[in-house]
Amino acid sequence: MKKSFASDNYSGVHPAIMEAIIKVNSGHASSYGNDEYTSEAEKMFKYHFGEHVEVFFVFLGTAANVLSLSSAIRSYEAVICTELAHINVDECGAPEKIGGFKLLTVPTTNGKLDIALAEKYLLNVGFEHHVQPKIISISQTTELGTVYTVHEIKMIADFAHSNGMYLHVDGARLSNAAASLNLPFREFTTDLGVDVISFGGTKNGMMFGEAVIFNNIELAKGFKYLRKQSMQLASKMRFISAQFIAYLSNNQYLNTASHANNMAKYLKDSISSISEVYVTQSVDANAVFAIFPKEITPHLQEETFFYLWDEAKNEARWMTSWDTTTDDIDKFVKKIELALH
Amino acid sequence: MKKSFASDNYSGVHPAIMEAIIKVNSGHASSYGNDEYTSEAEKMFKYHFGEHVEVFFVFLGTAANVLSLSSAIRSYEAVICTELAHINVDECGAPEKIGGFKLLTVPTTNGKLDIALAEKYLLNVGFEHHVQPKIISISQTTELGTVYTVHEIKMIADFAHSNGMYLHVDGARLSNAAASLNLPFREFTTDLGVDVISFGGTKNGMMFGEAVIFNNIELAKGFKYLRKQSMQLASKMRFISAQFIAYLSNNQYLNTASHANNMAKYLKDSISSISEVYVTQSVDANAVFAIFPKEITPHLQEETFFYLWDEAKNEARWMTSWDTTTDDIDKFVKKIELALH
Amino acid sequence: MKKSFASDNYSGVHPAIMEAIIKVNSGHASSYGNDEYTSEAEKMFKYHFGEHVEVFFVFLGTAANVLSLSSAIRSYEAVICTELAHINVDECGAPEKIGGFKLLTVPTTNGKLDIALAEKYLLNVGFEHHVQPKIISISQTTELGTVYTVHEIKMIADFAHSNGMYLHVDGARLSNAAASLNLPFREFTTDLGVDVISFGGTKNGMMFGEAVIFNNIELAKGFKYLRKQSMQLASKMRFISAQFIAYLSNNQYLNTASHANNMAKYLKDSISSISEVYVTQSVDANAVFAIFPKEITPHLQEETFFYLWDEAKNEARWMTSWDTTTDDIDKFVKKIELALH
Amino acid sequence: MKKSFASDNYSGVHPAIMEAIIKVNSGHASSYGNDEYTSEAEKMFKYHFGEHVEVFFVFLGTAANVLSLSSAIRSYEAVICTELAHINVDECGAPEKIGGFKLLTVPTTNGKLDIALAEKYLLNVGFEHHVQPKIISISQTTELGTVYTVHEIKMIADFAHSNGMYLHVDGARLSNAAASLNLPFREFTTDLGVDVISFGGTKNGMMFGEAVIFNNIELAKGFKYLRKQSMQLASKMRFISAQFIAYLSNNQYLNTASHANNMAKYLKDSISSISEVYVTQSVDANAVFAIFPKEITPHLQEETFFYLWDEAKNEARWMTSWDTTTDDIDKFVKKIELALH
Repeated sequence: MKKSFASDNYSGVHPAIMEAIIKVNSGHASSYGNDEYTSEAEKMFKYHFGEHVEVFFVFLGTAANVLSLSSAIRSYEAVICTELAHINVDECGAPEKIGGFKLLTVPTTNGKLDIALAEKYLLNVGFEHHVQPKIISISQTTELGTVYTVHEIKMIADFAHSNGMYLHVDGARLSNAAASLNLPFREFTTDLGVDVISFGGTKNGMMFGEAVIFNNIELAKGFKYLRKQSMQLASKMRFISAQFIAYLSNNQYLNTASHANNMAKYLKDSISSISEVYVTQSVDANAVFAIFPKEITPHLQEETFFYLWDEAKNEARWMTSWDTTTDDIDKFVKKIELALH
Repeated sequence: MKKSFASDNYSGVHPAIMEAIIKVNSGHASSYGNDEYTSEAEKMFKYHFGEHVEVFFVFLGTAANVLSLSSAIRSYEAVICTELAHINVDECGAPEKIGGFKLLTVPTTNGKLDIALAEKYLLNVGFEHHVQPKIISISQTTELGTVYTVHEIKMIADFAHSNGMYLHVDGARLSNAAASLNLPFREFTTDLGVDVISFGGTKNGMMFGEAVIFNNIELAKGFKYLRKQSMQLASKMRFISAQFIAYLSNNQYLNTASHANNMAKYLKDSISSISEVYVTQSVDANAVFAIFPKEITPHLQEETFFYLWDEAKNEARWMTSWDTTTDDIDKFVKKIELALH
Repeated sequence: MKKSFASDNYSGVHPAIMEAIIKVNSGHASSYGNDEYTSEAEKMFKYHFGEHVEVFFVFLGTAANVLSLSSAIRSYEAVICTELAHINVDECGAPEKIGGFKLLTVPTTNGKLDIALAEKYLLNVGFEHHVQPKIISISQTTELGTVYTVHEIKMIADFAHSNGMYLHVDGARLSNAAASLNLPFREFTTDLGVDVISFGGTKNGMMFGEAVIFNNIELAKGFKYLRKQSMQLASKMRFISAQFIAYLSNNQYLNTASHANNMAKYLKDSISSISEVYVTQSVDANAVFAIFPKEITPHLQEETFFYLWDEAKNEARWMTSWDTTTDDIDKFVKKIELALH
Repeated sequence: MKKSFASDNYSGVHPAIMEAIIKVNSGHASSYGNDEYTSEAEKMFKYHFGEHVEVFFVFLGTAANVLSLSSAIRSYEAVICTELAHINVDECGAPEKIGGFKLLTVPTTNGKLDIALAEKYLLNVGFEHHVQPKIISISQTTELGTVYTVHEIKMIADFAHSNGMYLHVDGARLSNAAASLNLPFREFTTDLGVDVISFGGTKNGMMFGEAVIFNNIELAKGFKYLRKQSMQLASKMRFISAQFIAYLSNNQYLNTASHANNMAKYLKDSISSISEVYVTQSVDANAVFAIFPKEITPHLQEETFFYLWDEAKNEARWMTSWDTTTDDIDKFVKKIELALH
């Protein structure tokens, strides 16, 4: 199909990743992660996040999230997140069904979690009729394409820890955040005390596979059993590991994420002069949220598909990817202009 | 690592499958299975199993099994299977945790389910203190490398249906069974009334991905939600679908499975003259189970790894694969002979 | 301890109920509900709710709620309720853990569910990333002491059914609603199409025990197994049944509920002249919610305990019970007056 | 109905227990266990089991078992028990559904767990494809009416602990074991290192209610939340507590249990001279298992109901209770004799 702004998972596998996959496909390898590629991939994660971290590969982001959280809490403990969190909205109840725990949500306008709003749940502590808040989960980048600053994450981590809670980061697009912040991963995650991270690459040029990174290795206890029991242990693990090795080498993750981010900024800039199009969120990474006249929507979607984030407001979410080109954007913007005038 | 007889999932991806993966990696594709490749793959399954079947792709065999069963029963209903069933032994309690249901096991000596032994569980029907048997699960090929005949499956299907139960087939190695029986898939599955099938290819040259095939489409109701909630919906689905298209085309599945089966027979024949090695199971597909003097085990494993199925008896499981060669076997048999004499 | 306005479950067992318990305690009775008292109790429910209903007894309200809902939906289906619903706030995540399903909440100011606010969840229907709304749960009386009118319930039931959903009523205080509406149970439940009801008596003079009443008997299929598996099958069931027989005979439930309701009205009237006390909710049943000067709270609680519903606003919840007397209230109101002046 | 030998839960509530219930029914009491009676009941348990134990009340035995085990393990850990264990056979899959864990069973002929047979599961330790054995559960008295000696329990506790596992005792009939062993509870439970106990009284004259006693108080962490979430927190807790106070005072539990045990022995002795009746298990407590000619079964059951434990063998289970009299037995034995001759 034609390229679109629907989602960064509409794009394919980056050639460097595909090459890595092909490269490991020779001869036998021990299954279930007992292979040399998996060891090497783990080392790459230790390099980026700290030597002490423990890392486990799973198939996809929903699993990384649910199992990260499950490993940290018991079923009567709860997760504080925004009402827009992917785990709350887009995982078809996987946290509740597979983890058995409850999500305690707080409103958000920019995708970020407001500590002040989370505080009310602390009133429940010790009262057995209520679930016990035990971990905060934030998404970096957020579901609205914004990026937490180091300071913001530090504040949330401190708030969590000073109240006996952990901090989880849903990093389906952590590379885009790294590119946006222009910082090594650890400086805005493990160094700040984030306890556990879901680390994805599929939205940035990988084929499949996600990592759970434990900074707080106490929480990793028994995780290998939890992963297997939760149907997330890949038999031919080398094909996930190979992707991560390539992804985390030679600035691969950074180059593609930077490109995607730049394309979002280019799109934002390109539409800045169109008065009928109103960008609703800060374009920190690879998403542009915009409101525009409803009547042009079908016309635009026809050739270059995208999702309406909020149908009532006719607010679109335009995602850019590692393979988005300025030409794609130029054509799209021209189309908008034509449609409007 | 060196090739081994440890498992058919130690081998890599067959070139034809890899080529198919590479071929679909161009441009964008709708995510989560709303792409043309997935439609085409579904058609391939309908061709092989019947036009009416409904098929869903998941990441791996454990998920195909647990979700097949979950879609068919409620938590107070139970699965009858052999005590050696993969779901009972090798899935770290995934059926119980994710499905919430109980397995009712019967002993087996050849890996096949004996209806007569299953009958005792029917005494529980209607008595609320006991779980209610509702589905039978058999593995084809079995965990002991044997293959059910058409007649045997027919008997079990009829037993199940006449007692208000369903029949599930764990077909992680269904292609090896097809090769062994020399029959199209449908003649030993859907045509006999098997209600739902886990269909795997990873042990026969695929990279990852498994299919759940519903012959009884009543059981498929809501499965798409169950799959998503159970963390098994691949975003870049085209890379599973492409594999299945290639796998089910041009006799790909059959050629590789036949080869693996032939290699097992070749191994069996090659050791038939060694009196110290006793083959314990019928070699119907791509596994050879054998007992031999304990003292040579480390020596053999050192160069060509394999697992001991039963340490007490020193019974080994030797799995052949699509990439096993007669040369591999000749060397291994020579090694055995040398070690023994 | 001294009588209080803390909760209607602080009061003891009504003498008529206790007498019924004692009366059935002679000789043997079949366990697990296969006894004559349980049959008789079931008949009482059929008399009050309709001959076609199916009824099952469990130990407590949380179980009645969770199992009512579980019997109606699969784990990927969801419950729409208010954000104040007992199932959402006060059951320590039992719906999520035991049922595995998600609650979709809507804001409320008077405890009642606003259909207009629930409608947004219908946008999710058919989209596998989101849980599928399948049942609405309302509390009658509500958690804020208000009572739905017949018309309001009819509207919600019609909304539910016309959108392929069911309606559940959490009737922990259904008798108080019956007294308030001055209607037989069926006229504001089963006659309106409510599909399943949690029916409690413990807050109105019973010792323990709750009933699940299925008006939509399709949903009752397999419930006896679900009850046992969910650890809610009482062995000496006759002692629950005996209570329900007494409770539903001779207007027992109505007399005690009416009394409790009257006491709440008496309390409301008694404080109406105190300008510093502001009643915040309509006093439809046996709860009075009121805001008053913070500084007198400890003084009042000391002798006659009650809970603060909202600490920030210093909003108290005063519950009356079957054993509350005008004298209790007079003394309490005097205390308020003394404290204030 | 007529008295029977069907089950000790067919009998009613002992007068001393009923009196205790009535006695606490005056005035208000804090709900959910925050009342003086519950404190007093807890003290009684500390007196009998050790000052350091922590105790929690639930509604019934299935819950005591499932929650005891759940509090000790994670879902990928498993319980070793006999194939006849109540948790394995008679709880409709509650352990699997509510706890999410797997039971690993060993055969038994006398109801007792044979350590030697359990050892095979230790081979799985550390291998992520298999559930990890973490707790042993034994029933005292066993499901076959036998009683473990102090030495036997000590051996099992030591085996468990030396292999990193816990020991749970399902004590639905622990009082009958105390009477049989003629020992204080602690001498055959907590003193031997049993980690957690399900303590029942309903089969020995109570109305409802069961206790979970933690000897290993590390396992009690968070139990109050688990209890609430698992739908086992009684609102009017005083009515459970009052029963336990009476049950554990004045040798109440011991007198009734001794009586029931004596009646079983009396029954065994009374039939010893009937050559057609063969007692199959050691009559250590209040159950007699016996095989006799099939043709007299309906005739016997008609007046004095009992269950066939094994229909194939025509093996009956005759349970005696606190209200069984020698006269009941004499009549029953006479009936047997008449039927046979």
